Amino acid sequence: MQGYVIGVDLGGTKILTALADLEGEILAKSRLATLADEGQTVVVKRIIESIEQVLKDAEIKRKEVQAIGVGCPGPLNVTEGIIYHAPNLGWKDVNIKELIKNEIDIPVFIENDANAAALGEKWFGAGRNIDNLIYMTVSTGIGGGIIINRKLYHGANDSAGEIGHIVIDPASHSECGCGDVGCWEAIASGTALGRLGKEAVDVGQNSLMEELVDDIDDIDEIDGAIVTKAAAKGDKVAGQILEQVTNYLGIGVANLVNILNPEMIIVGGGVSQAGDMILQPIREVVNQRALKAPAEVVKIVPAQLESEVGVVGAIAKALVEIGRLN
Amino acid sequence: MQGYVIGVDLGGTKILTALADLEGEILAKSRLATLADEGQTVVVKRIIESIEQVLKDAEIKRKEVQAIGVGCPGPLNVTEGIIYHAPNLGWKDVNIKELIKNEIDIPVFIENDANAAALGEKWFGAGRNIDNLIYMTVSTGIGGGIIINRKLYHGANDSAGEIGHIVIDPASHSECGCGDVGCWEAIASGTALGRLGKEAVDVGQNSLMEELVDDIDDIDEIDGAIVTKAAAKGDKVAGQILEQVTNYLGIGVANLVNILNPEMIIVGGGVSQAGDMILQPIREVVNQRALKAPAEVVKIVPAQLESEVGVVGAIAKALVEIGRLN
Repeated sequence: MQGYVIGVDLGGTKILTALADLEGEILAKSRLATLADEGQTVVVKRIIESIEQVLKDAEIKRKEVQAIGVGCPGPLNVTEGIIYHAPNLGWKDVNIKELIKNEIDIPVFIENDANAAALGEKWFGAGRNIDNLIYMTVSTGIGGGIIINRKLYHGANDSAGEIGHIVIDPASHSECGCGDVGCWEAIASGTALGRLGKEAVDVGQNSLMEELVDDIDDIDEIDGAIVTKAAAKGDKVAGQILEQVTNYLGIGVANLVNILNPEMIIVGGGVSQAGDMILQPIREVVNQRALKAPAEVVKIVPAQLESEVGVVGAIAKALVEIGRLN
Repeated sequence: MQGYVIGVDLGGTKILTALADLEGEILAKSRLATLADEGQTVVVKRIIESIEQVLKDAEIKRKEVQAIGVGCPGPLNVTEGIIYHAPNLGWKDVNIKELIKNEIDIPVFIENDANAAALGEKWFGAGRNIDNLIYMTVSTGIGGGIIINRKLYHGANDSAGEIGHIVIDPASHSECGCGDVGCWEAIASGTALGRLGKEAVDVGQNSLMEELVDDIDDIDEIDGAIVTKAAAKGDKVAGQILEQVTNYLGIGVANLVNILNPEMIIVGGGVSQAGDMILQPIREVVNQRALKAPAEVVKIVPAQLESEVGVVGAIAKALVEIGRLN
């Protein structure tokens, strides 16, 4: 039987939607601005619009679509389809599953965005043929998804994989968005890289970072990418910052390795685009600090799906739910 | 069909063996000193002796026993039955499964001792009816076992749950047996409690701990139990040490809560016998530092099986393997 699924990656700035066949092959794509400040009703309408667009572009009828997967910001209730709290959408307690299903009569399945990305990498990216893996994304924050025995592990109330909020340095005063201090994402995300870069320049340290910003001397433009770029060009100050942050990244990964003994850790997100400059120090810390048996077996690799990981993950979610991937 | 299983808890100082029916009801027990320095052959002979003893005591024939579960020190290969390295037995690369099976023709299944304890608490202790839980033991070290969807999670090469070696304080200089510094068990185990107690007295701090040792002034006798006892009696120095250690315990538990979102964390081992003096501060740190959703759902409870957890866990392992528990 022929059939199709649709994946929707609902983000704070854009809605990416794609239609795929039952092998996961993408046949049509749509990209719309979220414009979250126009309100929830308009955003839902725009999701429906994007779904209708990909149906039209691929010349597929609505009834041929077996499921819609939606990757959304969390925390959420996967079974009920509720987004509890999404600051970058301005949403609280929104039943996105029902809202979409009411407009378009196709089964809807939602997943936290990092978890959806983990599914994407597991089925269509770096994790093919791997049964136990952790996907982590390092960008403005740090997020994660845990695959155990080929299945996403949700935990007791769909909160498993919140790896960005493990405390890595209790002595740190870096505040995290969650209200705690010393969380992994407060000290080792792209945001942390940028903050440390800014601070170094701000106290007068001489660094290439100042010259790499578009608008010379606007140090507010220094972000993770600038720090990494300066470090790659041999800038000492940026290099030390990168060393500090990759050391924290390595400690967190070593902890995950000791706890979960995964076959693979897939590192995605903006920061990971620096490739081995980030991954190699992480591997070294893991070899040094994790136990021998789990450190020997784990492969620490870059994500393969890059910016499409969200929508591919949403497609994977739909395919898992209809039993095509298992 | 009537039938029986045998559980063996192989430790550095004692071999505890028990025979149980298929409901897990213990019918006979044996306890022998391990005397590991007499060599591997003698220890295996003693295990066989203990098995024959419980068969005799319960008046059960060998062929009525469907499986033997053995809890052993790790790291190990569960499928092959190999103990890779057990410092407290002086063993390296010992196929304990084969050695026992050669002597007594009953299927043998081995499990890491902390994992076996997790199975014991899951099926016969605090974790009955709980599908996702973490068992942790805090005594001389910190060990753990992870139950996911009612099953022990082994990871890629049987090393999952090595929670004692997650780095909790990268600034710490406390050395761990694994060669790293700042590991959880180096700063938050019973051993760490005792060390901090000794150090405090050693630098001349006035504390009840000095009077609680059997041999007055032999500060080497100060251990975790003495520190806890002094703190319970209101000793300020011991109280501060306990506060520091329970804070570290809480941070590690909060990390596990954020990563795995378990329904329950069961705390066993010598240190946990101090009950709420230990558990309450852990709960407070978790509420303060873990994310709201996973912190709200997790129950942090004391283990129920105490000193028998190892042998009951070995029985549970055997019952799981023959499909009686699932």
